[in-house]
Amino acid sequence: MAGNTFGETFKITTFGESHGAGVGVIVDGVTPGVELDTEYIQKQMDRRKPGQSSVTSPRKEYDIIHILSGVFEGKTTGTPLFILLNNHDMRPDAYNDIQHSFRPGHADFTYLRKYGIRDHRGSGRASGRETAGRVAGGAVARKLLERRGVSVVAYTQEVGGIACRSFVEQSIENNAMRACDPVAAIEMIKKVEQLAEKGDSCGGIVECRIRGVIPGLGEPAFDKLDAELAKAMLSIGAVKGIEFGEGFAAASMLGSEHNDEMNSDGFLSNHSGGILGGISTGQEIIFRIAVKPTSSISVPQRTINDGGEEQQIQTIGRHDPCICPRIVPVVEAMACLVLEDQYKRQAAMLG
Amino acid sequence: MAGNTFGETFKITTFGESHGAGVGVIVDGVTPGVELDTEYIQKQMDRRKPGQSSVTSPRKEYDIIHILSGVFEGKTTGTPLFILLNNHDMRPDAYNDIQHSFRPGHADFTYLRKYGIRDHRGSGRASGRETAGRVAGGAVARKLLERRGVSVVAYTQEVGGIACRSFVEQSIENNAMRACDPVAAIEMIKKVEQLAEKGDSCGGIVECRIRGVIPGLGEPAFDKLDAELAKAMLSIGAVKGIEFGEGFAAASMLGSEHNDEMNSDGFLSNHSGGILGGISTGQEIIFRIAVKPTSSISVPQRTINDGGEEQQIQTIGRHDPCICPRIVPVVEAMACLVLEDQYKRQAAMLG
Amino acid sequence: MAGNTFGETFKITTFGESHGAGVGVIVDGVTPGVELDTEYIQKQMDRRKPGQSSVTSPRKEYDIIHILSGVFEGKTTGTPLFILLNNHDMRPDAYNDIQHSFRPGHADFTYLRKYGIRDHRGSGRASGRETAGRVAGGAVARKLLERRGVSVVAYTQEVGGIACRSFVEQSIENNAMRACDPVAAIEMIKKVEQLAEKGDSCGGIVECRIRGVIPGLGEPAFDKLDAELAKAMLSIGAVKGIEFGEGFAAASMLGSEHNDEMNSDGFLSNHSGGILGGISTGQEIIFRIAVKPTSSISVPQRTINDGGEEQQIQTIGRHDPCICPRIVPVVEAMACLVLEDQYKRQAAMLG
Amino acid sequence: MAGNTFGETFKITTFGESHGAGVGVIVDGVTPGVELDTEYIQKQMDRRKPGQSSVTSPRKEYDIIHILSGVFEGKTTGTPLFILLNNHDMRPDAYNDIQHSFRPGHADFTYLRKYGIRDHRGSGRASGRETAGRVAGGAVARKLLERRGVSVVAYTQEVGGIACRSFVEQSIENNAMRACDPVAAIEMIKKVEQLAEKGDSCGGIVECRIRGVIPGLGEPAFDKLDAELAKAMLSIGAVKGIEFGEGFAAASMLGSEHNDEMNSDGFLSNHSGGILGGISTGQEIIFRIAVKPTSSISVPQRTINDGGEEQQIQTIGRHDPCICPRIVPVVEAMACLVLEDQYKRQAAMLG
Repeated sequence: MAGNTFGETFKITTFGESHGAGVGVIVDGVTPGVELDTEYIQKQMDRRKPGQSSVTSPRKEYDIIHILSGVFEGKTTGTPLFILLNNHDMRPDAYNDIQHSFRPGHADFTYLRKYGIRDHRGSGRASGRETAGRVAGGAVARKLLERRGVSVVAYTQEVGGIACRSFVEQSIENNAMRACDPVAAIEMIKKVEQLAEKGDSCGGIVECRIRGVIPGLGEPAFDKLDAELAKAMLSIGAVKGIEFGEGFAAASMLGSEHNDEMNSDGFLSNHSGGILGGISTGQEIIFRIAVKPTSSISVPQRTINDGGEEQQIQTIGRHDPCICPRIVPVVEAMACLVLEDQYKRQAAMLG
Repeated sequence: MAGNTFGETFKITTFGESHGAGVGVIVDGVTPGVELDTEYIQKQMDRRKPGQSSVTSPRKEYDIIHILSGVFEGKTTGTPLFILLNNHDMRPDAYNDIQHSFRPGHADFTYLRKYGIRDHRGSGRASGRETAGRVAGGAVARKLLERRGVSVVAYTQEVGGIACRSFVEQSIENNAMRACDPVAAIEMIKKVEQLAEKGDSCGGIVECRIRGVIPGLGEPAFDKLDAELAKAMLSIGAVKGIEFGEGFAAASMLGSEHNDEMNSDGFLSNHSGGILGGISTGQEIIFRIAVKPTSSISVPQRTINDGGEEQQIQTIGRHDPCICPRIVPVVEAMACLVLEDQYKRQAAMLG
Repeated sequence: MAGNTFGETFKITTFGESHGAGVGVIVDGVTPGVELDTEYIQKQMDRRKPGQSSVTSPRKEYDIIHILSGVFEGKTTGTPLFILLNNHDMRPDAYNDIQHSFRPGHADFTYLRKYGIRDHRGSGRASGRETAGRVAGGAVARKLLERRGVSVVAYTQEVGGIACRSFVEQSIENNAMRACDPVAAIEMIKKVEQLAEKGDSCGGIVECRIRGVIPGLGEPAFDKLDAELAKAMLSIGAVKGIEFGEGFAAASMLGSEHNDEMNSDGFLSNHSGGILGGISTGQEIIFRIAVKPTSSISVPQRTINDGGEEQQIQTIGRHDPCICPRIVPVVEAMACLVLEDQYKRQAAMLG
Repeated sequence: MAGNTFGETFKITTFGESHGAGVGVIVDGVTPGVELDTEYIQKQMDRRKPGQSSVTSPRKEYDIIHILSGVFEGKTTGTPLFILLNNHDMRPDAYNDIQHSFRPGHADFTYLRKYGIRDHRGSGRASGRETAGRVAGGAVARKLLERRGVSVVAYTQEVGGIACRSFVEQSIENNAMRACDPVAAIEMIKKVEQLAEKGDSCGGIVECRIRGVIPGLGEPAFDKLDAELAKAMLSIGAVKGIEFGEGFAAASMLGSEHNDEMNSDGFLSNHSGGILGGISTGQEIIFRIAVKPTSSISVPQRTINDGGEEQQIQTIGRHDPCICPRIVPVVEAMACLVLEDQYKRQAAMLG
């Protein structure tokens, strides 16, 4: 109810603040008897951590996971899997001067209005650090999906107005932007470095493709597969929009153009993005999300403090000038969580 | 779990197929002691019903509501409110020839793959008729929100490539497109009528504005206000995307452009769309959804039947060449449901 | 949240007041493709209805069910099944004189304090009539459980101090008390008729046996099979206690007496009542519930009205002097709902 | 869904096995701005821990709590509160000889049948150690309830056939049995010590009284206050039954005896146990639970191993000959969780 749990049959509950003692996740509903080692999850954590390149925050988050329960002799037991990440490299004093100020674009103002109290250190619970628990939980889902033949891959499609012109899947993890076009990636990096020098930031578009899903996943009426994916993606801090298949372009298409025809080999196109009536068609599921420019910039901005006094503020710290490359593993994690949950819901319905 | 319930503290559960005996909704968690008359709800139903103009389906759905419980002597009692709509003007035989065929763009194929069985008459549960229960439940939420000073208004922003150039709020309910620009509305209607003559259809964009919301609504981490709205909107049949505030345009903005600065009078802009960190800022909440062109067209299309044989199909029937004007009240209803739920969740948290 | 929904993967939502327009249920999560006819459900409704004998209320509730959705050509479709029962034989004016009074043992006082408003006619939502929806939903669960080889049978074990001395299963539906001992049943009926003449009522004990359940059902830690059954039973109006296996007698047993030993044929005893650690053992599940004497009696009692004035009250109406025989099908229905839900939850976990 | 979360608006999710790395709890839905120190929670933990007297297990569980999130500068923030307890004094090798055997009365057999795998060390997740997280979470609820003027006290009412004859509240925490009668407590202790010497165990009855609750708590139809309390109590390992107010004795009472009459001062009796129609009356809420004798005994018993071979088994270890005194704080914790949740649900309904 309070919003820190995601999923129905396969679910995660996260906790933790940016500069508290640690963050983590309880994963519940895990299929028992599945081999799961720490390295498998750690690999996903390493993709999310900052300090990977010139275009991400130089902050050090070692993100070493500790599995405290739910695994016995290398196998899942069906009981809740708890994963803890202790916080390190915290510099809470770095936030003293913004303790009473509302940083533009941040959740400082809204948290205070919601709760009447806020942990100002590094955005507290509103920090991107909260996604560490999601990625850990998503890695468990990913493991279960692998056994079903499902793969999930996300990548940067556009940054600072520069769009990918090609799709070279194997290049994604080999460039700092996690872009699907290695040539565009070079331009993007240059652009982001220039912005970082000026203390500014930029947004982008991240795309995600899910393959190997059986037809029939998704629960009408309200828990449609696309509805659940939309909620999952919009629950990620910087995301401002999502579209499936043709998405907003569908608004100016004709029915005769947008409908996916079929022949005996299957669908002849995939304008729908792999989902019809909220249920998977068995085709590739494809969606794109809009990522806003990072709110933390060192350009001076007007704001007020919690006493209502006007101020100028510069967010000086170790921030990501563009969050796209680091949001990619979070997008994948959330997609994995939705899919494994829907598989289990389908099993419940038929079972 | 099976996806026919929406909401946590204020929730609706819908049932019903297009050509079954009826459709309806149970509304649970209603504040007791609130005056509620049938006409109030009926008025919203009338906005949703087909047959209102040349640009919507000529089908007759009287959509007369019957409140069977939860209201006593004109006031809500706090017990579940049940609203029934009997089905009329059903012509199930009209669907005999598509009983075994998968109509392109429809959920025929996916329902059959999910359940192994399907009620083919008028799309069964996948029909837009399912939204009647949503609009009835949303009207109850709207009533409760009125007491809080919250208003929700949606309207057509773009259809068939024609976008509104002005925002004249009082014109919305006075043109058949429910467009916010009465001049563009005339062009839109002409375009849609032309397409209808050819048996084709088109999509559009619907925008929604929510005013009067207190700051502090929305539950981080997963049940963010925008995440819940995104799920609500993507759960509507023809919706393929959603964006908040600047939305996808934010992807090519700088942080210094996108951040909303503040002075002692409040926010100086609303690029965020009224939500920061998943929590309402107190500003107008604004989002847009992408609506795909209606799948039912009479242009011949290639498809297969449930035996895998290739066929040509023409969906002849009484369909909406553009669903935007009729989706408007559904968008409002879903937004009302999300907001009333979040108000009650906030009350629980503080209570 | 508001408490009118029961179950996780297989769930029911009920609505309706005693003297409103009708009562009913939405059953969600139904396995598709299962043959289900109206008569099957009607048969369970007929077991619950009043007016069956001298020991139950002479009120007429025809309880004719109408299935409005979720069944197509005689088979379940996997979409929500809606079952409506219109109210008949209502005499709301019969309640005029108790409109402002709190009947002892009833929920009049507590409903008013909870909601600030109440539908006083025939106890409104607190009426036993609310269980009609449960029995209808439970009948759907029973149908699904039959396919799994599971049977559920409840019966009166004790009434007014008279306990059954034998267990003759086939006699249960053949005596007005639904007692498992036809000889004790005669004594019980005599006792209840005598009490009814005096305008008084009595309580009793109902026992339930569930057979054919696989070992492994039930979700530790909180959703243990016995915990879910306990909630289900205590959610029935007149129930004041529940015990599994040896139950309260276990409190004075030794571990060496209570533990169920095993040999290669299985368990050597069933003191546990078929549940260990919240999970089914595969043995017969057995529990007993305490049923309080019916609150509606015509013996004069002291009470107050909603203005705080002292009064004497006699509940004159058509009431059950002992509710045990009519609670039996409700107990079975709730047990069926719990079991089908747990089967589906197990399928989700493994699936 | 998988059963490791309890509550709707105020909820806990627990994890951890007896001999894993640790156990703990995430508490979600906490009212923000409430002063909460570690000692307050630690005090409740100390009441639960073993090794407190001759009648409890000599096992050492230091149960030192660590709050890792949700508290900032001594106050709750409204974000999830995570409490960790590392495991100490583990002797996993002590369980080697029972690795493949099913101990009578334990969940060994049922866990293996449910999951196909089990962590045999100290009963794994089925261990009473799992309740540590509940007590920690319950302490947070207790703190919030104190501000509402609600108190919860449980105590041993009967052990090994010896019942309390008086109710001396201040004696409860001053005797090793946590009995409400200090004289009976001495007899109980003697009895339990004698049984412990023989390697046997015994059961008992624990009673709970809740005071200061407003009238109006509890959600009809399914989430009645007594239904939720029943689920909460039956979710505790050794509990085999529950009764409210007169409980099973009500089965042999008349309506004229059981109904609680009222005058202008309020209720004249409390046979109902403070709950009518599932809603609190404002009187003391009173219920009793049946606690089975501890399953772990060193008396030889017949069983089988996981290969189906017959064996004799003696559970040698450090066990509680009677769990009643240690179950008392768990009962209180679960009652606190139910109550705080219902207060918040009431706030949502009215809010």
